[in-house]
Amino acid sequence: MIILKVGGGKNINWDYIARDIAGLKEPVIIVHGANYLMKDISARLGIGERIITSPSGHVSRYTDEKTMEILLMTYSGLMNKKIVASLQTYGINAVGLTGADGKLWQGKRKEVILAEEIGKVKTIRDSLTGNVVSVNTGLIKLLVNNGYTPVMTIPAITEDGELINVDNDRAIAIMVRDLGIKKVVMLFEAGGLLQNLDDPSSIIKHIDKKDLDSYIGKTAGRMRKKLLGVKEAFSYGVKSVYFGDGRIEKPLTSALAGRGTLIN
Amino acid sequence: MIILKVGGGKNINWDYIARDIAGLKEPVIIVHGANYLMKDISARLGIGERIITSPSGHVSRYTDEKTMEILLMTYSGLMNKKIVASLQTYGINAVGLTGADGKLWQGKRKEVILAEEIGKVKTIRDSLTGNVVSVNTGLIKLLVNNGYTPVMTIPAITEDGELINVDNDRAIAIMVRDLGIKKVVMLFEAGGLLQNLDDPSSIIKHIDKKDLDSYIGKTAGRMRKKLLGVKEAFSYGVKSVYFGDGRIEKPLTSALAGRGTLIN
Repeated sequence: MIILKVGGGKNINWDYIARDIAGLKEPVIIVHGANYLMKDISARLGIGERIITSPSGHVSRYTDEKTMEILLMTYSGLMNKKIVASLQTYGINAVGLTGADGKLWQGKRKEVILAEEIGKVKTIRDSLTGNVVSVNTGLIKLLVNNGYTPVMTIPAITEDGELINVDNDRAIAIMVRDLGIKKVVMLFEAGGLLQNLDDPSSIIKHIDKKDLDSYIGKTAGRMRKKLLGVKEAFSYGVKSVYFGDGRIEKPLTSALAGRGTLIN
Repeated sequence: MIILKVGGGKNINWDYIARDIAGLKEPVIIVHGANYLMKDISARLGIGERIITSPSGHVSRYTDEKTMEILLMTYSGLMNKKIVASLQTYGINAVGLTGADGKLWQGKRKEVILAEEIGKVKTIRDSLTGNVVSVNTGLIKLLVNNGYTPVMTIPAITEDGELINVDNDRAIAIMVRDLGIKKVVMLFEAGGLLQNLDDPSSIIKHIDKKDLDSYIGKTAGRMRKKLLGVKEAFSYGVKSVYFGDGRIEKPLTSALAGRGTLIN
């Protein structure tokens, strides 16, 4: 079983991705973002996005109730169901789920978040954010063993039934641990991890998992988060992580053939 | 197994509903609307709603692509996941699904819709609407037999993977047929079917299923649609349909105890 993570960029081509999955023999479980849609709908509803940076440089979305509502609309509503429809078009019997459905991703809410703003560290107590601590592997296996392809996204849910925003990439690490996954493919809007952000052809072909810390030190924002998630996935036993381009034809098989960045 | 249909009104109390379901012994599968939210978000996004009436008096939502997007955001995103969270709070392991997930509700798109506007009949060809023709009973049974409670809503999906807006109440009739359901409970923002719309206490306690046509003739809009769905459910073998108040404590057990309108 492969975990396929697809970013939420505007130019991700789900038609290409769905066609590629349809030709694959190994079962795939899918995790997706919806970042572009979230930004777009937030703006159209006149609700500002607030991205906070922890003192250790970790970037996250400040998630109050209004933000959670837009997150539900865009990630689990619009994006998830459009993906399900794309997959169904190619005969893949997709079932869209959030981490709340069937307590798929059970998490703990952070009581306090530290945010660095203009050099000052602030304490935030009302953000509906947290971390995934366990995965309902029974539900994933039930679906996969019966021919369904789970398509998963945020939010997660706490033991008390509270919806929380979590980091998709860290949720993947927990699924690696609890499902014994060996291969993770991550598609986004670049050919792989780039040596030089201004040069799309400067793809780093291979990263030794031992060198992940040095790359984490050199990156920022979303890519840094992605690499932190990858590092955690290796600590839980993943064997290979493939970064690839989600905009091109045959994106998944290209990434698996090593045309992006291979980490192992 | 009981089908519980809950309307999408503003004052529906999901906390009461969830608590009531938690105390029930018989498994419940849930279908819900999100009409109030759909109206609200459409208005906030500056997209007008267009309700069309067929020459036979059937009311439906004109669903172009933009409307489908808002439908996905509100029905399958915000509303569905809030309901899942409410149910999880009471230990009910809910799994939210649209008719597209796992081809749960497979439908056929109407190629042409007739709409009566100011006395004239117009032909509409681009509305993403249709009817459910079959239900993936395997997925519902798989979930229920493993302790999950399906929470279902529109859209449905065509054989080609196209998302279509369908009538929830008619989808229920098809589930009655394909799952052999005997009891359906419908909760909304009234005590039952009212003799006089201006008098909330004028609840019609009992309707003989043979008299449904006469009630269909006397009602309009959503209630007419509901009764048409109920009539279809009887033609497929349902034994009792209970209308009840979705705003009160113990709404489901009250309806089952005959405190609303019983049709049989």
